[in-house]
Formats: sequence, structure tokens, C-alpha cells
Amino acid sequence: MPGAAATPVTGTATGTASAAPYGDADLGLLAPSWSGSAVAALTGDAAYLRAMLDAEAALTRAQAALGLAPGTAAAAVTAAAHGQDPRDLALRARAAGNPVVPLVTGLTAAVADRDPDAAPYVHRGATSQDILDTATMLVAARALDTVRADLARTADALRRTAAGHRDTPMAGRTLTQHAVPTTFGLKAAGWRALVLDAHDRLTAVRTALPVQLGGAAGTLAAFHAHAEADGHRPAPDLGTRLLAAYAAETGLAEPALPWHTLRTPVADLAGALAFTAGALGKMAADVLTLSRTETGELAEGSGGGSSAMPHKANPVRATLIAAAARQVPAHAAVLYGSLAAEDERPAGAWHAEWQPLRAALRLVGGAARDAADLAAGLRIRPHRMRRNLAATRGLVVTERLAAALAPLMGRAAARRTLDAAARRTAEEGIELSEALGPVPLPEARLRQLLDPEGYSGSAGALVDRALARRPERHPQEPTP
Amino acid sequence: MPGAAATPVTGTATGTASAAPYGDADLGLLAPSWSGSAVAALTGDAAYLRAMLDAEAALTRAQAALGLAPGTAAAAVTAAAHGQDPRDLALRARAAGNPVVPLVTGLTAAVADRDPDAAPYVHRGATSQDILDTATMLVAARALDTVRADLARTADALRRTAAGHRDTPMAGRTLTQHAVPTTFGLKAAGWRALVLDAHDRLTAVRTALPVQLGGAAGTLAAFHAHAEADGHRPAPDLGTRLLAAYAAETGLAEPALPWHTLRTPVADLAGALAFTAGALGKMAADVLTLSRTETGELAEGSGGGSSAMPHKANPVRATLIAAAARQVPAHAAVLYGSLAAEDERPAGAWHAEWQPLRAALRLVGGAARDAADLAAGLRIRPHRMRRNLAATRGLVVTERLAAALAPLMGRAAARRTLDAAARRTAEEGIELSEALGPVPLPEARLRQLLDPEGYSGSAGALVDRALARRPERHPQEPTP
Amino acid sequence: MPGAAATPVTGTATGTASAAPYGDADLGLLAPSWSGSAVAALTGDAAYLRAMLDAEAALTRAQAALGLAPGTAAAAVTAAAHGQDPRDLALRARAAGNPVVPLVTGLTAAVADRDPDAAPYVHRGATSQDILDTATMLVAARALDTVRADLARTADALRRTAAGHRDTPMAGRTLTQHAVPTTFGLKAAGWRALVLDAHDRLTAVRTALPVQLGGAAGTLAAFHAHAEADGHRPAPDLGTRLLAAYAAETGLAEPALPWHTLRTPVADLAGALAFTAGALGKMAADVLTLSRTETGELAEGSGGGSSAMPHKANPVRATLIAAAARQVPAHAAVLYGSLAAEDERPAGAWHAEWQPLRAALRLVGGAARDAADLAAGLRIRPHRMRRNLAATRGLVVTERLAAALAPLMGRAAARRTLDAAARRTAEEGIELSEALGPVPLPEARLRQLLDPEGYSGSAGALVDRALARRPERHPQEPTP
Amino acid sequence: MPGAAATPVTGTATGTASAAPYGDADLGLLAPSWSGSAVAALTGDAAYLRAMLDAEAALTRAQAALGLAPGTAAAAVTAAAHGQDPRDLALRARAAGNPVVPLVTGLTAAVADRDPDAAPYVHRGATSQDILDTATMLVAARALDTVRADLARTADALRRTAAGHRDTPMAGRTLTQHAVPTTFGLKAAGWRALVLDAHDRLTAVRTALPVQLGGAAGTLAAFHAHAEADGHRPAPDLGTRLLAAYAAETGLAEPALPWHTLRTPVADLAGALAFTAGALGKMAADVLTLSRTETGELAEGSGGGSSAMPHKANPVRATLIAAAARQVPAHAAVLYGSLAAEDERPAGAWHAEWQPLRAALRLVGGAARDAADLAAGLRIRPHRMRRNLAATRGLVVTERLAAALAPLMGRAAARRTLDAAARRTAEEGIELSEALGPVPLPEARLRQLLDPEGYSGSAGALVDRALARRPERHPQEPTP
Repeated sequence: MPGAAATPVTGTATGTASAAPYGDADLGLLAPSWSGSAVAALTGDAAYLRAMLDAEAALTRAQAALGLAPGTAAAAVTAAAHGQDPRDLALRARAAGNPVVPLVTGLTAAVADRDPDAAPYVHRGATSQDILDTATMLVAARALDTVRADLARTADALRRTAAGHRDTPMAGRTLTQHAVPTTFGLKAAGWRALVLDAHDRLTAVRTALPVQLGGAAGTLAAFHAHAEADGHRPAPDLGTRLLAAYAAETGLAEPALPWHTLRTPVADLAGALAFTAGALGKMAADVLTLSRTETGELAEGSGGGSSAMPHKANPVRATLIAAAARQVPAHAAVLYGSLAAEDERPAGAWHAEWQPLRAALRLVGGAARDAADLAAGLRIRPHRMRRNLAATRGLVVTERLAAALAPLMGRAAARRTLDAAARRTAEEGIELSEALGPVPLPEARLRQLLDPEGYSGSAGALVDRALARRPERHPQEPTP
Repeated sequence: MPGAAATPVTGTATGTASAAPYGDADLGLLAPSWSGSAVAALTGDAAYLRAMLDAEAALTRAQAALGLAPGTAAAAVTAAAHGQDPRDLALRARAAGNPVVPLVTGLTAAVADRDPDAAPYVHRGATSQDILDTATMLVAARALDTVRADLARTADALRRTAAGHRDTPMAGRTLTQHAVPTTFGLKAAGWRALVLDAHDRLTAVRTALPVQLGGAAGTLAAFHAHAEADGHRPAPDLGTRLLAAYAAETGLAEPALPWHTLRTPVADLAGALAFTAGALGKMAADVLTLSRTETGELAEGSGGGSSAMPHKANPVRATLIAAAARQVPAHAAVLYGSLAAEDERPAGAWHAEWQPLRAALRLVGGAARDAADLAAGLRIRPHRMRRNLAATRGLVVTERLAAALAPLMGRAAARRTLDAAARRTAEEGIELSEALGPVPLPEARLRQLLDPEGYSGSAGALVDRALARRPERHPQEPTP
Repeated sequence: MPGAAATPVTGTATGTASAAPYGDADLGLLAPSWSGSAVAALTGDAAYLRAMLDAEAALTRAQAALGLAPGTAAAAVTAAAHGQDPRDLALRARAAGNPVVPLVTGLTAAVADRDPDAAPYVHRGATSQDILDTATMLVAARALDTVRADLARTADALRRTAAGHRDTPMAGRTLTQHAVPTTFGLKAAGWRALVLDAHDRLTAVRTALPVQLGGAAGTLAAFHAHAEADGHRPAPDLGTRLLAAYAAETGLAEPALPWHTLRTPVADLAGALAFTAGALGKMAADVLTLSRTETGELAEGSGGGSSAMPHKANPVRATLIAAAARQVPAHAAVLYGSLAAEDERPAGAWHAEWQPLRAALRLVGGAARDAADLAAGLRIRPHRMRRNLAATRGLVVTERLAAALAPLMGRAAARRTLDAAARRTAEEGIELSEALGPVPLPEARLRQLLDPEGYSGSAGALVDRALARRPERHPQEPTP
Repeated sequence: MPGAAATPVTGTATGTASAAPYGDADLGLLAPSWSGSAVAALTGDAAYLRAMLDAEAALTRAQAALGLAPGTAAAAVTAAAHGQDPRDLALRARAAGNPVVPLVTGLTAAVADRDPDAAPYVHRGATSQDILDTATMLVAARALDTVRADLARTADALRRTAAGHRDTPMAGRTLTQHAVPTTFGLKAAGWRALVLDAHDRLTAVRTALPVQLGGAAGTLAAFHAHAEADGHRPAPDLGTRLLAAYAAETGLAEPALPWHTLRTPVADLAGALAFTAGALGKMAADVLTLSRTETGELAEGSGGGSSAMPHKANPVRATLIAAAARQVPAHAAVLYGSLAAEDERPAGAWHAEWQPLRAALRLVGGAARDAADLAAGLRIRPHRMRRNLAATRGLVVTERLAAALAPLMGRAAARRTLDAAARRTAEEGIELSEALGPVPLPEARLRQLLDPEGYSGSAGALVDRALARRPERHPQEPTP
């Protein structure tokens, strides 16, 4: 073929990829679930870098607050804590295996430029893990606040939906088959209950996110050493006092112990994030199922199009939430696995936390954004629900008939009668009412019993009770 | 070779295996971590069967309590709820895909033998999932109570250990290398903190374990239908009143909604169990590391022997805990994945919960038993800790020297001096004190600085603070 | 309520559970997917015990074959290698952390009863791991042979199905929505392709399953020591010769090295089993989707019933396969994780393999059984497929119309026309043909283009090509 | 504290993060394991974009090769296939849920600029998945080639190491305790065997990586439609011929069927990548263990430093490999889980593959790079191996003594004697030779038996055999 490249393209990564300035960056191209989201911005490398610098500055301020560093040093570190290049740090992180080592080098130089006397106070007494863990908690706190707001929005939309459809009848389905009727209100109230469960779990975890400070091996001994070298006589509880001051400077909680290898905060995040992904995944699974062409009871507000098929309106939001729900549990498993960390800093278990935790935050951040959009824009089609409820030609109420007939005919005879009628209904394509034959019930009562819309049990009462629940507030949040 | 079988053994599963009465049973042969444990007995098929029968009986009693069934029926079901064969049910479960269907058949027959009028009240209004989920919660409640007791025992032993070794110096290790000194008390206090974190999370989850009741699709409509058929006029909130009565009969919590596809209780169990496995895994990882032949700072109370090597004393308890910690997160991931369950009962996600949840309970039950034994019997060798602390010939305190020298020499010069001395110490195999050369410190002060036992920072204060914490109690537990 | 237990049942595990002889056994009650299956019998504790005894006997025979043990000893061990109680071994396994230590004690006693001179040859030179790993490979070989046969049966049924429905039209669905037509033959041929992929992967893995023999730390040194003690002068390659003889006695492959911590065989099993579960899971996912009440294109041969709803016919086989497909990847992840095993036998990673590998074998064994039943009994409803194909009132062929109109109207104008028509079709509930308005195509051609049954592309040719493939045979299998 | 920020930093994500041009990018800051690696560059968003454009261009060329598009169109698309912005596409991917939809828009415009007549041939007949799957295979092929080269380098270094230390004695360790002697040669030969296992599995997978082409639902019908619209009479096998042409243009393999929901290639990648991570993880686990301060038998060529502790030389390469080995199995589990994909394109399972597969490629790419560096630079300390071998004061050869004494004293008496001697050795801190007391062996023989260096069994022969193995070559690679 003249004029076109003849060489197969497998073997060659053409120049563009590697020559690009950020050629190896993940910019969200494979992650429509979170690309462009607020949580993505709060969890990018730039945000982690920002949080690491915040952690360094807060640490110097905390030491100043206890008289272990001059206020001018704290001011200088705070002022200089910006402007490093994450990509450059990423490359230099390889030598020591973490990004804090090169970051401290750069920050020290920047501080020295401003105030040479302040430079020795940069990162003084700390270990890399103090900074990276604290930064991770700052990033998580910021991300969770956004997720919680999106969950609250989702729950709010679902409250309106469930209230509005409190009594909208639809088929209840088990193992893919119509079972008995239910209401769309009960379904939506259930989604909301899960969203609130997620919200409340995230709130509890977020409130407890602790600052990290232990020094080289968790004893905070270097702070004692520096204090001694400066001529102080440090009290035995210098460490716990510094922990409190550091917590105050960062806004994070004060831990009882340095948690370099006591990874409760990370494991709690793992669990709450996996829970949230799954909770939203339930709603997505239902939306996907009820949006199927043959079912058509729900549709997304604005379905995704197709380049080839003009008619396509895909449930894209639900699809992306479902995709997130498949991934987060695996990240959580890695994080739970990292609890079993040897020594005062493990060789691998800690490093294995970084990307999975960030990935989980991003996936949940994206899923919460999509869930809020999905819940707000959901198109609900009660007429399709009613039509589908008739799809079994009455079989969806066999349970009710069995209950009604049992006292009149005996349980076993009632069951035999209904088994036979159900078989005829299915095989001959007729209505159950037709297949049923004579039964010892007045016709009006039978007609009533055969109407699926009247067989919703306690659904309404359950909806009312579920909707009375409100999301729990963060202790520091103002009452709305 | 005359007289011995010449046929390779791969191809043949000789008769014994399949002919054995319970030939395909898992009796614990591959699970020394939980074989013979209390939790194993509480989670075997017999225990699940017991709990399913308990759930059936409690359901009839709850209906009787609301006047929906005669008291005699409740009594008859309660009396007949025993004695079925789990193996037989397992085989018959295949047809409908769950064990409740054949169980109800058997229970109905047993009740009919006692009181034919009571038979119609067996399982009346319920769906299989109501019984299996409730049974699972009963099993989990019983298992968690045992686990929590073992964790409390473990924490208690560790409290004594940490207090007794509050100031026992040892090397703090990061990325496998000696970093700075720490104390064994701080390490043991950290283990205990994780054990208490696990205990408290399990307590919270256990308290909230709910009864399950929703009927065929979560509306509890069949209870309305039966009430109507019996001539009652059921109130719209019949379902919620029945939920409350059922909760009271079982001792489980009352859920706001039927949770057939709102799997918060299962997900919460998943998280708490994965956390517990990991929390115990941390202690195990440290015991394994510190028991290594070259290190020898710890040994298990009674090490496991070897058939071939008379000298072997293996850290078997820690090994089995470590093995459990590797498995439970994967089970948790499956359980979190099952949150995204479509419809009113999913086709697969629910069924995928049963074995992973049981496996997680058993692994954690075994690990908690092993942890309690391990903590109670741990042999601690302070002399080896001290000897190992000297293994770097002083390098373990370079951080302290750097702090002390910085104000005297400048931070950079101090670092250069110590880098050079560290290199000489490592390469020439000499003491740091020897390699150091002249430094601007009085000799007595230098000697003091070089003593690793004096460099434990806030370790003591941290231990004291951590040991003040007590395990949280279950609301229903008496104050000790 | 008089006469019935008033105490809540949570707190009490009544006697039955713990008093039962095998009270903590897993007999399949929670595993309808594999209960009663051939693979369950081949992988129960009894089967593992049988395989461990086979491994011990084969090892003595292999030594006899090399002159390292008397033939009478080999015969005695072979004859005595039966009859131990797995439950008893499970309890005694706890001390050393594996079941081989007590098994050797029992076997030695049994051999001594027959031939006291033979007793020293029991387990001589071996380590526990040699026996347990070899037994595991024997169990896996036996289980995989059954799985492979079930997969071959499944593929055979699917071949007939795909051939019979080569041209049966149905809707192709993407992201839950009708996209363009496809054929049921192509779908079934795709299922079969995955089943064959699984079959061939399992065949490759099964063929390579190796015997394990390394002695205490992988050097086979004890065999040298015993040979020397017996007055032989063992050649330096005694170990590799013994490996070969052991492989011959067991029918397993000969490994290049002892693989105590080179876990390729276990990892390969993990991958092939996870693949198989997923491959069958694809068929199950489609059966579940196409069986939904509203869709009704497929039904299982004999659906599972419900205790409460006479009309229910659940897709139970597909549900259980789907449940298995959710669990096996997690087991595989644990097994892959165990590759990173320290030393010559790791403290935890090996022990963490046992139950997950067995669970994966059982789940896949059950899923393969269910898949064979499902494929053989599947009820296919071409009329529902055709009816559903019309559900979009013509929209399912917009892609084809766009292609046909583009050269006549220009690509963009064609797209605009179809977008508008698609919108009208959806909103007004009319046929696409009606909504379309005048287009520059002869009416007969347009009618032809609008017929979804004529738009199956290369489906037929693809089916023919795919069905020509045959399952790969095991090297040792006779040509059929 | 004057001059410094007083507000806690949690609540505020300061401007920098979100204002940065690529503020949410992952540039490797949290991934020292792969930052800056060749595989990172080959798997970044820019590389995926490059591959998608390659896939589009190859598809038009393949159509031209069959006469379905003009050669000028193929040339125009090939020439225009560059220069789009991945970040922009990432944002626009959100609407349709994948990046191909906006990419096609951009590419069509770029082609129209060059040759308006060529524009209709962009993406003609294809679906988004055809392009994204093909691009993924191209990316994987390029990445695996780099990984395989690094593994070959690693294996080569380990071959030299194993050969050079064929007979270097060291302690064999099981469950953390010295068991019997082994050689470092055998250990290194084992590492190499795993590396070659990984290499060969990756080679097999890479060779089979297929092109993807199925059109909207796997029938390739649109290609028929376009051919008809252009006045051709397409043969029934147009699709398979196009598959072959597309495979030739891309250099990928030709699949038997479109594999939109037959995900064997992705699952095979998952397995091979998880295997590779674990295989390298074994070496890392050993390096970490043997580098511990107390053991000191190995050290990395250039250990990672610490900001606080001048003496620290951390095994950073092994740490990062270990961290990767913890993460990849979880990604593999997600990918295996995606096999069970419903319909002709699933709503979530496909989308859930993208990031985990990329993450697995990157982690393995980084680990292979680190492994090559680690193997090449490993510092081996035979003197420490020998010294440690003496750490048990002779207990490491009790197995050998038991073998030697059994024929002389009887097996049981020998065992009793050695048990007692082992106990004394351990408790009294004396040599086994001293603790042993009189035994019926000549002193010279006893001395010989007590020398651990003479007890390496078949280690040498095993090393020789293992080192004879060579990596398998890719069919298309030239013989070296």
C-alpha cells in the first residue's frame, strides 16, 4: 500500500511517548471515573507534594510552639514550603526509596536562601515516614471531605426519589426472576441507607485521622537529643507533648502512639473506602439491571453516546461506578495485608500502601461524584415498572394466593393447585387468573389478590422509617 | 521392586477417599491454625445448622408473640428444631442452591410429627435468605464473643509484658537495618494497642449484628398475606413490629430495613476480621523476625518440633498467625465485592459470601487463640537484645551524635564527620568511638552519648500512656 | 409465650454443635456449588490424607528402586499406608504446624507392627513439606483430570449448541443496551472458546505438576547421610536420581530443583484455576442476563424452586458458577502472594497456600460440574430472541443505515438524519422506519436494511472457524 | 507563634494543587519502584494515546490492504495520527466513558484538514473497544519486551553468581530457624529458575497478544455494511480476512474470534505479571532477610541512605521489589474477575481492567529493573555465611548425626541422644560436640560429620543442572 507505513507497530514505541515532558504520567486517560474530579485534584502528586510541605512546615511550627525552635525558623520554613517539582522528586526518590529524602534536600536549600539560621530546623528530628504519613492523612482528610459532601448530595437526591416513589409498584426480583412486587421507593430508600452507612463510616474514619510523628524508630528520641544539644533538659514526655502540638498545627488527631507499624488509620481508610465503593456499587448494579433494553424502568439523565450507533444511550455513570466497585476491594486487601508489618518500619509493606490508598481515594472520589450526578438525574419510568410487573401474567403474586388459599384448602393442596396453575401460565402463555381454575374465594377477593399493586406489605412503613435517618455530622462541622 | 505397587499413584484416587462417610469433609487437616479451636466448633456446618434451626424457631416464636401464630406452634417448632444431618442437607442444597429449602422440608415433617396443626407455621412468611442470614449473624455473634475474649487475654498478657519491659533496650529496626534504639516495652505496647483496636472494632460490629427478615423480596408482604388469610387486619407497620419481635427472640439487633441486598453487616464483619488478622499479624511478624537464629531476642513458649532435626524449635504459633493474616484480606475483598448486589437477591454475590465469611471467622478465631498462647508464653531474652544493640559497634546512635555535634560544629560538618566515621566503622570492623576521631565534646559526655541504652526518647512515657487504655465493653456485658 | 424458649439465642451455642463427632466439619452445607461433586471427594481431608500416605509409600519405593532401602521396607510401608484418622491428625497437627509430623508417627507405628525392620525407612530423609507438597500435587492431578473431563463435556455440548444456532439472530448488547444484532451461535461459540482455553491451560499445568523432594532444606543431604551411614558412597547426583525415581513412582513430573520456595507449580495452578472460574463465569453471566424475566431468551434445564413462590424457576447452576467466579481470583491472589517466600521454608507463606488451593480446586470442580449440566440442559428460545431483537423498533440497525446512507448523503448528514430518527423512535414509541422520513434509498433496499436478521456480518464464518478447534490432549492420554 | 500560619492545614487544599497544569497527575511521586523506568514511559498516558492512534491508523491501512478504503485514506490517517493531548482526552472521556470517542473526533478533524475525502475512513466500522484493546495489547507488547530483557539480564547475573558460589556454604533456614546447611549457589540458582520461569511465561503471553477487531458487537457487520454501501459484495469471511490484515499491520497475533468479552489475553497477562512479581519477590525476600543487621550475609550494591542516620544503608531495591510483589496479585485478581463479563460488552468489567493492567505492567516493569540492578550489584559475604553457619554451635547438623548414629544405636536411641545434646547445647551455650558425650563413632568421622561445610548433599549437582537451562526465545527473535 503506497504511502502508508508498512512496518508493524508493535515493536516500536515511537518517539512521542518517551519524548513528552510528562510522557509516563497518568493524567486520567484510562480513568474516566475520576478524571477531572475534585478528588483527583486533591490526590494528585502535586497535592501530595503540597501536603508533604505542609507537614514539614507544621512540624517546625509545632517545635517552635514548644520552644524547641525559634519562631523565625518556623516562619521561614512555612514561607519556603512550596514550589518543588513533583516529577523531579519522583525521579530522585528512587535512590532512598521515598520522596521525602529529596524533598528535604530541596526544602532545606530553599529555607537557607531565606534564612540560613532556619535551615537546621527543617525536618529536624523527623523521619521520612513522619512526613509522608502525615501528608497522606492530610490528603485523605481533604479527599474524604469532598466524598462525604458528594454522598450527602446523593442521599439527599435519593431521599426525594424514595419519598416521591414511596408507593410506585415494581417487580421485586431474586436470582434474576420476578419474585413478588415491591416498590421503587423501598429500593431507593435502600440505596440511600447504604449511602448513609458509607457517609457515616467515612465521617468516623476522617475524624480519627492522626498526625504521624515518631522519629527514626518511634521513640521521638531525636527531639530529646536536639533539645539536649540546645541546652534544654527535655522532660520524659517531650514526645507526647510534641505529638499534641503537631496535631494542633495540622488539624489532624493526636495518636496515642507513633503508628509507623501500627497501621490502624490506613486499614480503617481501606475498609471505609471499600465499603463506600460497594455501597455505591449496589445502586449502580440496580441501575444497570433496570436500564437494560428489555426492562427499561430506569435511564440515566444523560446517557453516553456511541461513535457508531446513533441510537445508543449508555448508562455510563453507573458503568463507571460499577468499575470502581470492582477495583477498590483489591486495593483494600493490599492495605489490610500491610498491617502485618515487621520491625519499626517494614521493608515493603509500607511502600505497598502508597499507590493503593491513593487509587482507592480516587476511585471512591470519582464514584461519589458519579453517584451524585446519577441520583440527581435519574429518569424513572413508573409505566415500565407497571408493565413489567404484569410480565409474568400474574405469577408474581403466587405467594399471596398460596397464603390466602392455605386456610381454605390446606397448605399442601393450595400449593399443588398453584404449582399446576403456574405451570400452565408459563407453558401456555395465559394469565394466571385463567389458569387457576375454581378456587374457594369470592371473585372480587380473588381479583384483589391477583392485583400485584396491592401486595407491597410493609414497604411504605419501611420507607418512612428509613427516610427519617439523617447523615451523622463530623464533630467539627457546624449544625446545618 | 517386588511386593510393592508399581503403578504411579497420580491417576488413581483409591477407594478410601470417596468411600469414607464424610470423605469430602474439611476436618481441619490443612488448617492447624484453627483445628480444634472453640471458634471452629462454633462455625462448623453443625453450628450453622443449629443456628438455622434456632432462626426458624425464633421466627415462629416472634410471630406468636404478635399473635400471628399460636403459642403451641411456636413451642412445637422450638421443640422440633434439632437433629437434621448437615451432610444430607448439603447434598440436597444443590437443587435450589441453598440449604434452607431442604431444611424447611425436614423441619416441617418433624413438626408435623409432634403437632400437625403447627406444621403450617414453619418458615411461614420467610424466605431462605431470612433464615440463612440470621443464622450467619448468630454464628458470627457466638464466634466474635470467643475471639474478643481471646483478644482481651492477649492484651492482658501484653500489658504485663510491656510493663515489665518498659525500659528494656533493644535495637529499633527499619528496612531490616538497625536504626536507633527503642525498648521492648514500646514494641509490646504497640502490639497491645493493635490488639485493642481489633477488640474494639469487633465489639462495635458484634453489637450491631442484625436479625434478617424481609420475606421473598424485602417487603415482608407474606406476613401481611398470612395475617389477612387468618382474618386479621394487619397494620401497615406489621413488618417493622415483626422485625422488632424477631430481634428480641434472637438477641440480635433490629435493622432499619431488611438487608437482603444492603450488606452492611457482612461488610463490617469483613473489615473488622481483616483488621484483626492483620493486627495479630503484626505481632507475629515481629516474633518471627526477632526469633531468627541470628537474632534470638524472642522465642515461643513451646516451639514446634521437626521429625528430622532434633534441635529445631520453630515459632509455630507466629507462623500460623502470619498464614492467617495472608488469607483474611482476600476473603474480605470478596465480601466487600458482594456489596454491589443487583435486585432484591443477587444471583451469585450472596452465595459468594458464605464460605469466605466462615473462613475469615475461623482464621481469625484460630489466630486469636494462637495469639493468646503466644503472648502468654513468649520467652524474652533481654541479654540478646542488649548484645544485638551492640552489633553495629555504635552506629545505632549516629543520629544522636549528629544532633549533639550540630550546634558545636555546624550541621553539615557534623554530618560529614559522622558519615566518615560510619564508613570506617563498617568497613574496618571497629567501634564507632574508635572511628570517630576527635570531636568537640567532653569525653564523659561522649561516652554517655555513645551508650545506646540511654537513647530511648519518650519510649517510657509512650508505654505508660498506651497501657492506660482499656478494652471497650459490649453494651450488654457486665462491668468486670 | 408459654412453652417456648424465652432466652435469646445469640449468646448460646447449644450443645449439639460442639458435641457432634465432627462438629466443626465443613461438609458442604454452605457450598452447594461443590457439595457432592467428584472433585469434592477428591479434595477432602480424606483424599489429602490418602495422598500423603501415597507420597510416603512412593518415597520408600523410590529409595528401594535406587537400592537405598530394602524392597521389603517399601512393601511394608506401602501396605501400612492407610487407615489414619484425618480428624485426629488435624488436632495433632497444631503442635508442629503441619499434619505430616503426626502422620509420620502413626505410619511408623503401623509399619513397625508389620515389619519392625521397615520402620526406620518411613519418611527417611524427607521433610514434612516433601510429603505435603507431593500429596497436594497428587490431589491436584486427580482433581484436574475430573475438571478437564467436565470441561470437555461442556465444550462438546456447546459445540452442538453453537452449530445448531449458527444463524439464530439475537440482539448484541453492550453496556446493557441493544447495539447491533448478533447470533446465538456466535455467543455459544465464544463460550466454548473460553472453555477450551481453560481446558488447555489446565492440561498444560496438570502435565507439569511435579513431585516434591528436597529434604530439610532442599539439598537432599539426608539421603546422602543415610546412604553413607548404610555404607554406600553416594554419588554427587544422588539427589537428582532420587527425584527421578520418586517422580516415576508417583506419576508426577520431575522438577529441575526442589521447589520448597520456588512455587511455580502452585502459582501455575492458581492462574489456571482463576482462569477457569472466570471462563465459566462468562457463560454464567450471559445465562443469568438472558434468563431475566423480561428477557427470557434462555432458561436452565431444571430451574431451582422456591419454598414460598410456586412459580419460581431460578437459574441455580449459573448462580453457583457466578458465585465461584467471584471467589477463585481472591484465592489465586493469596497463592501468587506466597511466591515471595523467604528462606528455604517460609514462616507463613507456605501454610497460607493449603486452604486457598483446596478451595480453588473445589470451587472450580463444582463450577465445571455445573457448567457441564448447564450446557447440556440449556433451554434456548429463538422466538424470544427474535422478539427482543424487535424491542428497539428498528434502532438496533442504525449502524447499518448510517453506513448505507453515508455515501449517498454524506457521513454527517446521514448521522444527523439518524440521530433525529432515533430520538423520535425512542420518544414517540414508533418504528424507526416510520420515524425515518424520506431517504435516498429504494424502498425494497431500505426494508432489507431494516431487517435485523440480515445484519450478522461475519458471525457465521467466525462460528465455523471457532468450532473447528479441538481441546488439546494430555501427553499421556490416548487419542480418542 | 508570630509570623507563621496558625490555621491547621487539614481543611485547606491550597491553590497550588488544583491550579497546577497537571495538578492531578500521577508522575511517579509515590512510585519509586517504577518512576523513571523504561516501562513507565512505555505505559504512560502518552504511550497509550500513541498506541490508540497507531491502532486507528493500522485499521485504516488494513482496510486499504483489502480494498475497503483508498490507499490515500490510509496514508492520511497514518500521517495525522499524532499530537492529541492526553489530558484533554481524559476530561472528555467522561461523557461516553472511554477515551476513544473523543480521540476519534479529534483524529477525524485532523485527517479532514489533510484530506477531506479520507475523513470518513477514520475508525470506520470499528467500536471504541477495538481501538482501546488493540492499543492495550500494543502497550503490553512493548512493555513486556523491556521486562523480558531485564529478566534475561537478571538471570544472566544470577547465573554468574550461582556458578561462582556453587559451593559456598551457608545455613539453610526453615520457619526462621537454621535447619541444615545449604549453599549460596543453590539459593541463587533457585532465584534464577524463578526468573526464567517468569521470562518464559511472559514470552509465551507476549507472543500470543492479539489484535482486537469485532465492531459494535463482535460480528464485524459494519465492515460488511460499508463494503456493501461502497458497491462491493462482501464475502461471508470478510471479517476474518480483515482480522488477519489488521494483525499484520499491527504486528500482533490474529485471534480466532473477536474477544470483547472473551478476555483470555488480559487474564493471561494478569497471571504472567503476578507470577513475575512474585518470582522477583522471592529473591527480594531472601535479600531482605539475609541483609538484616544481625545476619549480614548480603548487601545491596548501593544501599539507600537516610536523612537522619548517617550509618544507614537500606536494601532499597529489594524493598521496592517486595512492595511490588504485594500489589500485583491484587491487580491480577481484579483482572481475573473481569473474565465473567456479561453480553457483548460489559458495563463495568471491561472498564475495571484498564488501570489495574497498567499498574501491573508498571510495577513489574519497575521490579524487573530493580531486580536487574540488584542481581548485578549484590554484595555477597561468604565469611558472614560461614560465621552464621556456626551460630548454632553445631546444631545445624543434627540431622546428619541422627542418620549416622541410627544404624549404630538404633533410630530411637540416636534421636534421644541428640535431643538431649541439642537441649544442652542450646541451654548451656556450649558446642554440640561438647554436649554430645560419647557416641559409637571414630573421632575423626565425628569431626567430619560435625563440619557443616561438608553437608551439602546434592546441592552442587542441582546447581549444575539448573544453570544449564536457557531462557526461551520469542519466535520472532533472532538466535543470539
